[in-house]
Amino acid sequence: MNYTIKNALTTVDNRYLHQDLIISHQQISAIGTDLEPVGTVIDATNKLLLPGFINAHTHSSEMWQRGIMSMYPLELWLAELYDFAPLDLSQVYLSALGTAVETLLSGGTSVVDHLVLIPGKELETIATAVRAYQEVGIRAFIAPLIQDESITAGIPSGNTSQNHEPYFRSTQATLDIIETAVQQFHNPVNGVSILVAPTGIQLCTDALFTGCIELSQKYDLCRHSHLLETKAQEKLAQEKYGCTAVEHLQRIGYLDYRTSLAHCVHLSDRDIEILAATKSTVVHNPLSNLRLGSGIAPILKYRKAGVNISFGCDGASSNDSQDLLEAIKIGSILHNVTDMDYRNWITPYDAVQIAAQGGAIGLNMGNYIGTLDIGKQADLVTYDLTNLSLLPRTDPIGLLVLGRPSLAVDSVWVNGKQVVSHGQVTTIDVDELRQALFNHSQWQTMRQSQTAMELEPHYRFVMGLSN
Amino acid sequence: MNYTIKNALTTVDNRYLHQDLIISHQQISAIGTDLEPVGTVIDATNKLLLPGFINAHTHSSEMWQRGIMSMYPLELWLAELYDFAPLDLSQVYLSALGTAVETLLSGGTSVVDHLVLIPGKELETIATAVRAYQEVGIRAFIAPLIQDESITAGIPSGNTSQNHEPYFRSTQATLDIIETAVQQFHNPVNGVSILVAPTGIQLCTDALFTGCIELSQKYDLCRHSHLLETKAQEKLAQEKYGCTAVEHLQRIGYLDYRTSLAHCVHLSDRDIEILAATKSTVVHNPLSNLRLGSGIAPILKYRKAGVNISFGCDGASSNDSQDLLEAIKIGSILHNVTDMDYRNWITPYDAVQIAAQGGAIGLNMGNYIGTLDIGKQADLVTYDLTNLSLLPRTDPIGLLVLGRPSLAVDSVWVNGKQVVSHGQVTTIDVDELRQALFNHSQWQTMRQSQTAMELEPHYRFVMGLSN
Repeated sequence: MNYTIKNALTTVDNRYLHQDLIISHQQISAIGTDLEPVGTVIDATNKLLLPGFINAHTHSSEMWQRGIMSMYPLELWLAELYDFAPLDLSQVYLSALGTAVETLLSGGTSVVDHLVLIPGKELETIATAVRAYQEVGIRAFIAPLIQDESITAGIPSGNTSQNHEPYFRSTQATLDIIETAVQQFHNPVNGVSILVAPTGIQLCTDALFTGCIELSQKYDLCRHSHLLETKAQEKLAQEKYGCTAVEHLQRIGYLDYRTSLAHCVHLSDRDIEILAATKSTVVHNPLSNLRLGSGIAPILKYRKAGVNISFGCDGASSNDSQDLLEAIKIGSILHNVTDMDYRNWITPYDAVQIAAQGGAIGLNMGNYIGTLDIGKQADLVTYDLTNLSLLPRTDPIGLLVLGRPSLAVDSVWVNGKQVVSHGQVTTIDVDELRQALFNHSQWQTMRQSQTAMELEPHYRFVMGLSN
Repeated sequence: MNYTIKNALTTVDNRYLHQDLIISHQQISAIGTDLEPVGTVIDATNKLLLPGFINAHTHSSEMWQRGIMSMYPLELWLAELYDFAPLDLSQVYLSALGTAVETLLSGGTSVVDHLVLIPGKELETIATAVRAYQEVGIRAFIAPLIQDESITAGIPSGNTSQNHEPYFRSTQATLDIIETAVQQFHNPVNGVSILVAPTGIQLCTDALFTGCIELSQKYDLCRHSHLLETKAQEKLAQEKYGCTAVEHLQRIGYLDYRTSLAHCVHLSDRDIEILAATKSTVVHNPLSNLRLGSGIAPILKYRKAGVNISFGCDGASSNDSQDLLEAIKIGSILHNVTDMDYRNWITPYDAVQIAAQGGAIGLNMGNYIGTLDIGKQADLVTYDLTNLSLLPRTDPIGLLVLGRPSLAVDSVWVNGKQVVSHGQVTTIDVDELRQALFNHSQWQTMRQSQTAMELEPHYRFVMGLSN
């Protein structure tokens, strides 16, 4: 289907222009002023048009525990998450729908779902998420979360002797599941990509990383992991490898231009050089880093070193929203307190570029999405500039990034197909989704995680906190 | 008018209960389960009911420059703000309406407007803001922003000799304006209070502070100022007084239980003790502190020391929204990166209390608003728990504070009067407001502030930044 988006406000070289875009065969085929319309004409007067953003790291099923998790650092938070995590496939489906909808309505056209797998139903979990994302029509990068060590192994021992249960599934069995998933579901042209996604050095052996590298090479897959989210992980890497986690991952060949790494809070200057040299991408998740007290990722240093950056919401148990505009705002202004020199601060224009193009590059999609250029896939978003939250009229991108837009997204196209119109998702019935989420849940008071309580004394000892 | 709010979800001792509230003569007259209804019955099934929050620091007319201000620290940002600030009364009116609406729709029932006055039309400015707030029906605390030194005096000299233009109006003339405003507009029972509000030590003489103290005593007015927002102000206080700003303000008698102080980013431990001893209130504005790179206010230390805290959005040129829930979320989780011990972190329950009761105490209104207690004025908000952003159902307050609620406010009552119903402001026509804001403005590209450019070399020198 061909169509023309007419009279949208766009930016060229930091100036605003009213432009028309012609979309043919899912791609941008022309951009200019007063173009001869082709196909259906969509009036975008008083709308800001931007390339779709990428929610470059989340865990969709965490939506079931948003709002309820204790105020814990990652290691204890994870224990609580797992204690209350028993999921079924219908939940996986609903939370993937919810994640997709919230992402679309906050300017995202792509989502990277570091997907928690139901033990024994791993392929069904992936199939369910694929189905949900295809129904909503968002571009999906599904990164099945894998590990081959037990959760207690993720806390440094601090020179004490710790025994950890072996993981319930062998490394090879896990890799086999991922290879099957790739063969069944990896279909980038159709909007579904599978990534290899060992959760991180804290719970994965070198064998798992190496197996993932092989799959990545065999099928040209992107690689996705958590990296140095917490101080505890920084300690753990030293215990495990005698060097930093980044040095180790470089040594085993995990880092390359297809690798995106969530968090990257605790890196040395040398680590930063390695990320730049290997063309790895940092996925900045400012809200979960604050909520879990992980720290402030040195994003301004990454920019200075030439490391590619993107933004993620992270899972809804550690944020607890999937509003990408919120992550972009806080992920931009947070760093102003880390560098007195305001000339290094991220501007709203930078932020939009990080959110769209940075995200695309990190998924090896820089040639296909992330900018408004002829030949790019039509992953596009318009924002209603008559929305109260974007008034009075000043700099539209400044308003969008630094303000707090309230449901300001007007239309969204993914791969040329319109999936949001007049602020409403057109592909699924969102009221029905709300009703299903409501019916599958109940209001709760605070609860207590047994595993977190058991881990807490050792955690506090290792981290130097008084008991 | 008497009425009954039926079957609302409320919290008592960290447990959720479905309760009814009876409102008689603008006050909560009964709270309980299955009460015999009085007057009109309002069904609050699937709604969370909380006391209204207080937006404890903002500058309404900054709404005209939101989204467009450069990425500058406060001192240069102020220069830019003033270069482009020429306002007329119709703008003051519209931005006060906009500030009130955004506050109501994010859970606020009170606003403290540190109101920028149009030179020569000071009383008209105050009258205009009073009119706007009364039309919307929000509880207004109008703090006319006054100073008696020129803007350049706000930057430390750094042992250089600096000449500053005298301020255009005498200290006494300024105090006379405030006294007249108090006589004309101060009417707390009717929902309008006037505060004395010297902008801060950076631009005010002791004579102005002392005059404000006298007015505060004569008319029982609250006191409101900026305090130690930036490192530059910390330096300036030492240059000006040879001691900290807090020590100086205590010495001249400005600090008491009616004093609320915006920002408080750069305080010593001794300063914190003084705030606690004088029962002063800290107004935390996390978003503007990040945007301007001012720093992270040591809120966990304030809590430990027993200092009362409240939340503010700050003016929309430094935030750039008036979404109080956003300020509450970021103002809570931001501090987790400042203290490894998660037992000190602010919980969602704490946050709600800070936003409602903390705000009320800081305005000497702790006996009238800020909690759901019999005898309190009915400043109440209900949130629609079937909103997608508050689903699935877990802990409602956790979802509200840690999530990103999208227009989740269902109803708002201020002083017993309903001003929002089914998410719509009922007192003014918001579409008309949007149209007026649209018509009074135009989209702009970046601009250059002459004054900021002139101040920049000295600022960079004093702050140790390379030129």
